[in-house]
Amino acid sequence: MLFLVHMHVQIPPDADKDMIERKKAEEKAYSQNLQHEGKWRHLWRIAGEYANYSVFDVESNDELHTLISSLPLFPYMKVSVTPLAQHPSAIVQN
Amino acid sequence: MLFLVHMHVQIPPDADKDMIERKKAEEKAYSQNLQHEGKWRHLWRIAGEYANYSVFDVESNDELHTLISSLPLFPYMKVSVTPLAQHPSAIVQN
Amino acid sequence: MLFLVHMHVQIPPDADKDMIERKKAEEKAYSQNLQHEGKWRHLWRIAGEYANYSVFDVESNDELHTLISSLPLFPYMKVSVTPLAQHPSAIVQN
Amino acid sequence: MLFLVHMHVQIPPDADKDMIERKKAEEKAYSQNLQHEGKWRHLWRIAGEYANYSVFDVESNDELHTLISSLPLFPYMKVSVTPLAQHPSAIVQN
Amino acid sequence: MLFLVHMHVQIPPDADKDMIERKKAEEKAYSQNLQHEGKWRHLWRIAGEYANYSVFDVESNDELHTLISSLPLFPYMKVSVTPLAQHPSAIVQN
Amino acid sequence: MLFLVHMHVQIPPDADKDMIERKKAEEKAYSQNLQHEGKWRHLWRIAGEYANYSVFDVESNDELHTLISSLPLFPYMKVSVTPLAQHPSAIVQN
Amino acid sequence: MLFLVHMHVQIPPDADKDMIERKKAEEKAYSQNLQHEGKWRHLWRIAGEYANYSVFDVESNDELHTLISSLPLFPYMKVSVTPLAQHPSAIVQN
Amino acid sequence: MLFLVHMHVQIPPDADKDMIERKKAEEKAYSQNLQHEGKWRHLWRIAGEYANYSVFDVESNDELHTLISSLPLFPYMKVSVTPLAQHPSAIVQN
Amino acid sequence: MLFLVHMHVQIPPDADKDMIERKKAEEKAYSQNLQHEGKWRHLWRIAGEYANYSVFDVESNDELHTLISSLPLFPYMKVSVTPLAQHPSAIVQN
Amino acid sequence: MLFLVHMHVQIPPDADKDMIERKKAEEKAYSQNLQHEGKWRHLWRIAGEYANYSVFDVESNDELHTLISSLPLFPYMKVSVTPLAQHPSAIVQN
Repeated sequence: MLFLVHMHVQIPPDADKDMIERKKAEEKAYSQNLQHEGKWRHLWRIAGEYANYSVFDVESNDELHTLISSLPLFPYMKVSVTPLAQHPSAIVQN
Repeated sequence: MLFLVHMHVQIPPDADKDMIERKKAEEKAYSQNLQHEGKWRHLWRIAGEYANYSVFDVESNDELHTLISSLPLFPYMKVSVTPLAQHPSAIVQN
Repeated sequence: MLFLVHMHVQIPPDADKDMIERKKAEEKAYSQNLQHEGKWRHLWRIAGEYANYSVFDVESNDELHTLISSLPLFPYMKVSVTPLAQHPSAIVQN
Repeated sequence: MLFLVHMHVQIPPDADKDMIERKKAEEKAYSQNLQHEGKWRHLWRIAGEYANYSVFDVESNDELHTLISSLPLFPYMKVSVTPLAQHPSAIVQN
Repeated sequence: MLFLVHMHVQIPPDADKDMIERKKAEEKAYSQNLQHEGKWRHLWRIAGEYANYSVFDVESNDELHTLISSLPLFPYMKVSVTPLAQHPSAIVQN
Repeated sequence: MLFLVHMHVQIPPDADKDMIERKKAEEKAYSQNLQHEGKWRHLWRIAGEYANYSVFDVESNDELHTLISSLPLFPYMKVSVTPLAQHPSAIVQN
Repeated sequence: MLFLVHMHVQIPPDADKDMIERKKAEEKAYSQNLQHEGKWRHLWRIAGEYANYSVFDVESNDELHTLISSLPLFPYMKVSVTPLAQHPSAIVQN
Repeated sequence: MLFLVHMHVQIPPDADKDMIERKKAEEKAYSQNLQHEGKWRHLWRIAGEYANYSVFDVESNDELHTLISSLPLFPYMKVSVTPLAQHPSAIVQN
Repeated sequence: MLFLVHMHVQIPPDADKDMIERKKAEEKAYSQNLQHEGKWRHLWRIAGEYANYSVFDVESNDELHTLISSLPLFPYMKVSVTPLAQHPSAIVQN
Repeated sequence: MLFLVHMHVQIPPDADKDMIERKKAEEKAYSQNLQHEGKWRHLWRIAGEYANYSVFDVESNDELHTLISSLPLFPYMKVSVTPLAQHPSAIVQN
């Protein structure tokens, strides 16, 4: 089941740089893990912004929430979620 | 080059039903053609709305505009476009 | 799996009154059917507005979209959907 | 009398972690108490966000305000309230 | 129990003038009746707009919805409702 | 002459608690004074929010501005003002 | 007493041209009358839009509402009003 | 003196097609004339929308308003204007 | 050439009070100077807000930007600018 | 390929002044370099705001993102991007 997720990252300019770098590294590892498992199906940078659009493939809303709220940078993110359904004109199944 | 495209369709309740059905059929054929060519890479219905999110893979902004503005239902759509870039944590190339 | 759904109905003042009354009757029957089946778990009127908040209990985004887009008054509605997850402080399971 | 309540929690990244954890524990106890009393009828997490939708069942606007403004995390919340009425198609009474 | 109600009236320029005048007269009678009963406690015009702010004093959300949705001009209105509670600094009871 | 005033109070979580309590007490005294004089005609809490709706009865915009900007908590408020006129259906004069 | 007034005119493309021209002529005469009387103190076109910003000088909110709602094009306007007070740094009195 | 102008064209689906085609042709001629004169310095299509961003080079706000409000499709446009100034880092003069 | 300018001042509650008082005094002197020169033609307080509407009379967008960005409180302001043109019904020239 | 880019700079009032001045100098050099290369085709100040509109001419969304996210002041900016296409009435090629 697919969800489009918009994540906008807002790191306060006075945040501790080392801590942020550590969290970014964790975030990258976490994200790539989920991509390899097929749960984080797409990950795109929004050109010009510190934000991304992603597509998650999960079993339930609960799983989606667990995955997103476990992001190392989650406390610095503004997130919004759009549930996606099969489009009748799509040539592949979701 | 990828673009996320949000299309919201607004057909006035008093529109001619036959004409709309004809345009919907043309839209489906047009869309599936572009999907087979690989230019319309993803097409998802937004659950609960007469709207979709799509990802286009095109050579340029001009090609993107030509593809979207040629949609049979374009005069009934509100469209917005978000340019996507390679995300440094993505495990595949756009 | 639960979704909060906001439906705002906008019937143009010049719409055919008989047709609208017929659609409203169909809508009521359709809605009560789904309530009896347990898929439309809650249905509340927003005080002072021709709008409602509902909670649907479905298997998937696809089922949710099918249920909503089959509403007899769907062409007259503005709909938005919020996916709900289990809250850690809730004393019952969703 | 039912009210839909949207609560969005915004904890500043530099807040004291112990104090916040203590308040979260208090919040959980407070919320579960009200759920057991039947006043906090539903509590759902919004998938992907540090926010929830709730339904309160109270005698009056005053009682509603007292319950919400006594939340231990209230100073960190953005709250909005929607009064709900009986929907004519609902198969149960509010 | 008090509610602040904002009503914005939008009459399409091509509406039937006689019908609208009749509905306005009915609206006035209906409103003055409720004012005399004490249910429609305040009624103010917003300067420069075809809109008003009102305060209703009702027993419940259901009564509020019944009163508002029975307004003769309701189909032409955009309405929003704010539930009011006792303010601790107010020198009178609501 | 009446004005509807919306005041939303935003006290930063790290503000000095004693100073804020002192200002709140001053605010209460100030507000009750104006209520007794008849200038602050209504004061209602918005249910669930740290915000209020008020109605002021003043001689001029200048007097209104002086009264509001002298509020002890004014530096922590977001204020908006709506001028009210006599409604032709109101059964009392403003 | 001064008010800044924003008026945005929206004439439906299919409106009767003669009627609109007549109303525009009436509007011009009406406006110039009020300007000569000193009640409509300033009238500016917003560059690029069919809209204007005006400053009215009136005795009360009631007078303001009467002047604006009597505009021949009022049914085609979206109006918003901002009450103005004396600025402490202004070198002239309002 | 430069102004960025955003024009969004909204042609009602039931507009007379011949009349619109005629106006579009006039619009093109009008626009190209101003481009040749150097007053309409840039004209870009917004990808995916029936809208454009333009830069005008004019002597005054009055000239700008005259040029825009004389557009054959002006009655079908939503326009907004942003005045541009010399940027201190720009390597050319506006 | 006239521009309507909206300035909203946001001074953080923890800002240095002396520094702010000094800047306010400079701002007043600066503003009165420009008013005497005729460049800052009008200055009004928005009733109930720490904000103002002003009308500037300048030679160009560049001059306008220089005047506004030199305001002593500019770093604490949110500013928006609306270019004004001659209104055909105005009885005086801008 | 052209993109219109809106950049709004928000420097917290308590930021280190020397560091900001250094970053501004770097920003200027960086920007002028890209202007000389032809990649940053236009750079305009928005009159009255600490913001600019720019036009970039790049090969791809990826190049655009790299250029913008490398701006020395990027962590202090709110950026939005609009992809531009050839307008059929433009007398020059993008």
